[in-house]
Amino acid sequence: MKTNITADAGGANAGGDGAATSTSASATDANANVNAAATTSNSANAVNAAANANVNAAANADATDGGVVGGAGAGAGSGGGGAGDTTNSPCLIEGVVRALECLRARCPLTHCMTNGVVKEFTANVLLAVGASPAMIEHAEEAREFATMADALLVNLGTLDDAQMEAMRGAIPAYRRAGKPWVLDPVAVGALGVRTRFAREIAGCQPALIRGNASEIIGLCGRASRGRGTDSGDGAEEALDAARELAARTGAVVLATGAVDYATDGARVRSCANGHVWMTRVTGAGCAQGALAAAFAAVCGERLVAALAAAVVMAVAGESAAARTAGPGGFRVALVDELSRIDGESLRRRARVA
Amino acid sequence: MKTNITADAGGANAGGDGAATSTSASATDANANVNAAATTSNSANAVNAAANANVNAAANADATDGGVVGGAGAGAGSGGGGAGDTTNSPCLIEGVVRALECLRARCPLTHCMTNGVVKEFTANVLLAVGASPAMIEHAEEAREFATMADALLVNLGTLDDAQMEAMRGAIPAYRRAGKPWVLDPVAVGALGVRTRFAREIAGCQPALIRGNASEIIGLCGRASRGRGTDSGDGAEEALDAARELAARTGAVVLATGAVDYATDGARVRSCANGHVWMTRVTGAGCAQGALAAAFAAVCGERLVAALAAAVVMAVAGESAAARTAGPGGFRVALVDELSRIDGESLRRRARVA
Amino acid sequence: MKTNITADAGGANAGGDGAATSTSASATDANANVNAAATTSNSANAVNAAANANVNAAANADATDGGVVGGAGAGAGSGGGGAGDTTNSPCLIEGVVRALECLRARCPLTHCMTNGVVKEFTANVLLAVGASPAMIEHAEEAREFATMADALLVNLGTLDDAQMEAMRGAIPAYRRAGKPWVLDPVAVGALGVRTRFAREIAGCQPALIRGNASEIIGLCGRASRGRGTDSGDGAEEALDAARELAARTGAVVLATGAVDYATDGARVRSCANGHVWMTRVTGAGCAQGALAAAFAAVCGERLVAALAAAVVMAVAGESAAARTAGPGGFRVALVDELSRIDGESLRRRARVA
Repeated sequence: MKTNITADAGGANAGGDGAATSTSASATDANANVNAAATTSNSANAVNAAANANVNAAANADATDGGVVGGAGAGAGSGGGGAGDTTNSPCLIEGVVRALECLRARCPLTHCMTNGVVKEFTANVLLAVGASPAMIEHAEEAREFATMADALLVNLGTLDDAQMEAMRGAIPAYRRAGKPWVLDPVAVGALGVRTRFAREIAGCQPALIRGNASEIIGLCGRASRGRGTDSGDGAEEALDAARELAARTGAVVLATGAVDYATDGARVRSCANGHVWMTRVTGAGCAQGALAAAFAAVCGERLVAALAAAVVMAVAGESAAARTAGPGGFRVALVDELSRIDGESLRRRARVA
Repeated sequence: MKTNITADAGGANAGGDGAATSTSASATDANANVNAAATTSNSANAVNAAANANVNAAANADATDGGVVGGAGAGAGSGGGGAGDTTNSPCLIEGVVRALECLRARCPLTHCMTNGVVKEFTANVLLAVGASPAMIEHAEEAREFATMADALLVNLGTLDDAQMEAMRGAIPAYRRAGKPWVLDPVAVGALGVRTRFAREIAGCQPALIRGNASEIIGLCGRASRGRGTDSGDGAEEALDAARELAARTGAVVLATGAVDYATDGARVRSCANGHVWMTRVTGAGCAQGALAAAFAAVCGERLVAALAAAVVMAVAGESAAARTAGPGGFRVALVDELSRIDGESLRRRARVA
Repeated sequence: MKTNITADAGGANAGGDGAATSTSASATDANANVNAAATTSNSANAVNAAANANVNAAANADATDGGVVGGAGAGAGSGGGGAGDTTNSPCLIEGVVRALECLRARCPLTHCMTNGVVKEFTANVLLAVGASPAMIEHAEEAREFATMADALLVNLGTLDDAQMEAMRGAIPAYRRAGKPWVLDPVAVGALGVRTRFAREIAGCQPALIRGNASEIIGLCGRASRGRGTDSGDGAEEALDAARELAARTGAVVLATGAVDYATDGARVRSCANGHVWMTRVTGAGCAQGALAAAFAAVCGERLVAALAAAVVMAVAGESAAARTAGPGGFRVALVDELSRIDGESLRRRARVA
């Protein structure tokens, strides 16, 4: 499995990235410090949290071995690929860790032109991770904002004519400003207007495209089995389409599912973390797209940015599921875990290749 | 009390329903099983959850006897009506249980054209119960989606001109496709544009109409005492209007309040479950409308679908209130309880007639 | 000080209203008792919760003295102003307490024309405190609603052309009806369309204007350092701009930050409560604007209404932070605390001057 993974670039890029950007420990760090202090001085909670974490970590190991949908059998040590695959998972993880550190140091202002179902959750996810969300809708302001924000997310979930017009103006403004934009082609392939629109803007040099298997297949122009926002196709089935789409658009493509795959057309990275409950709350995928935009803003190597968005969301999801009993509590815990995730938890849990 | 309940059809319909649809134990069941396993393997949490459930069940029994607003004195054994009323509550409950099983087996794709306040909550409620939400807004796509989705909700909460146009196109498309649509006439009677629009589309054969007392009275053309989304009228006062509206439109009408009433113009079903906190979080009523659409998609007998939407939401609300201390936590717990509700809890708690 | 508080109206309203409504210690109280019991019987959690509360209260005192971003050193006793300032903090607090009692007695119907990110949270905050939210968007209905609602919030967060048109109609309708409207100039100063629009409507006699430092400075026409919805300026730096804006528009201006300041151009009130986590969840500021509208509806003295919105939100935020470990849980707890806040907690915690 994962025989397509090329080993050369993961470590090198990751290294290059982190060095360039992790230096600016500015205002946001002050916040981080204040919060850390507050959390630490709340000793009873800290102790409890630790205790819970231990219990849950153990419980979760069981759950993910046996319970995750399409779990891909990617247990400890499974990160290696086929013969000749020299991918170094620790290097990939270190790249993700550095990307997260950069994001927290720079707090990228992330402009989300997204759907009406997930705006609040998306904003809270970005805030929890350490980015700054902004939801500007007006066509003129959306263009203007390209000079201020650090990245743009274009999510087609509840597309209407006014939003299409605003997106058509904003995307070239971000390109002119040299800032990345991310396309999340929600339900593309299933519905006509958005499929045509997504194919149109996919030609405008997105830095990243993030979608489930059916959306990636549909955007690529192949027949998909999507049903609304549900994917009827497996992420692995989408990998061919993702490679083709990456080659055609120049974007890094993140195709999500039980295993998430990121590809620039040549190289492929994968993340086998996650939990089925992430499909039982609305907005986890859409928020992952926003995270991808935030990471793209701080991370020159877009393949690392895509992998970071996948891993950070999925590892936080596993942690959240391990301490909750239903989707309502899970959604709350997911935001908490995103604020708490760090290099240590990533190194302990991430299953990337 | 409940002397208006006619006894004839409840059992028969419920029986008819279940047999037709509960066979397809497909993909969604797999998820249900996986989740159950995951929860169980998180043993420390599971034990606590079980303990809480027991404690809360007891506490809740007290609460519903003495505390529910307008509680209607409908304790255990109160399901019977006046003299000559032979309604068989157990049969009604079994119909609701089968409807819930059908919903989980078939995971109906539920298209919600709803207001901007409750989109996320509505989506999470549908996901928790076991349905699949989709919020398509664009007029052309909303029509197109009628060929894919299983039912449509039309909620007028934050109506604007574009949404009216899209609804005007989508409703006949669902009718042509032979799929049910549900009208939730939020604040109708109080405001002009939506009152005219609601009366217009009420003529387009909705399968169900769900509203609070003032909304049902207002849609019927009588003087109501609604104030924004608050009802100034009692659900029992609305029963006459509901019967008239059902007779006139052909819809089953669900008039909600301390007691929810469902009627097809002749027969009346009631649900005396619920908790005052459901009126202290936004969106519980709107999400109930979405549930009604999901049930209508899987349940040929619309009176059962309406009752199921009422009972499932109200019983989950009681369970959630029994283990929370404020509206914030209640809203989270309500989603959890909706994912957990099953035949056993419905049989133990439902107070239907 | 607060010598400007007219003693007659506050007490009269509270007394008049309160008598009518405070007697019904019914369903909701019963629930509170039941829930408390349920929580207690979950003994392990209850013990921890209690322990946390104590620890956190202590931790929080430390945090707010030393740790809150831009903490302003506003500890006990720091409220005093220049020579001759006879501010009497207890009187200020009693004014806030009476405003909260009035709000709960009268449950003002609060029309929120607000942004798409925070509609649900705003509604839940209003419901939790005891007001009744309504989100009417259609231009014709928004005008019509002025005859029914008690106050209007105009929040520019996700402004578009249709919303501007609707706001342009609604504002004069509220003025004609003699009802207060509140302006929340989100991201004004940073973006052109909304800055022009905000300056236009600021001339239409808003009762209150609420914004962060950069927004107040930007609305005033000075150069601000705002970045999206983030303020780049301190609230104290904004105080001059706030005074000028108040004098020019006739509004009471609430400039928020680590310390919130309310001014009518001459008098200044401040609130030093709050917690850094309020900046780490979306919508706390926007919901504060909605609270300000609800308070303005019941509170003739607008300076008290502004202070009440600031204090109620900030004290609830402190309480919520003291019992949660991350922004997800904090957001849930904030709603709970808003439903629970009362005269006793305000008197114990409020740090106003």
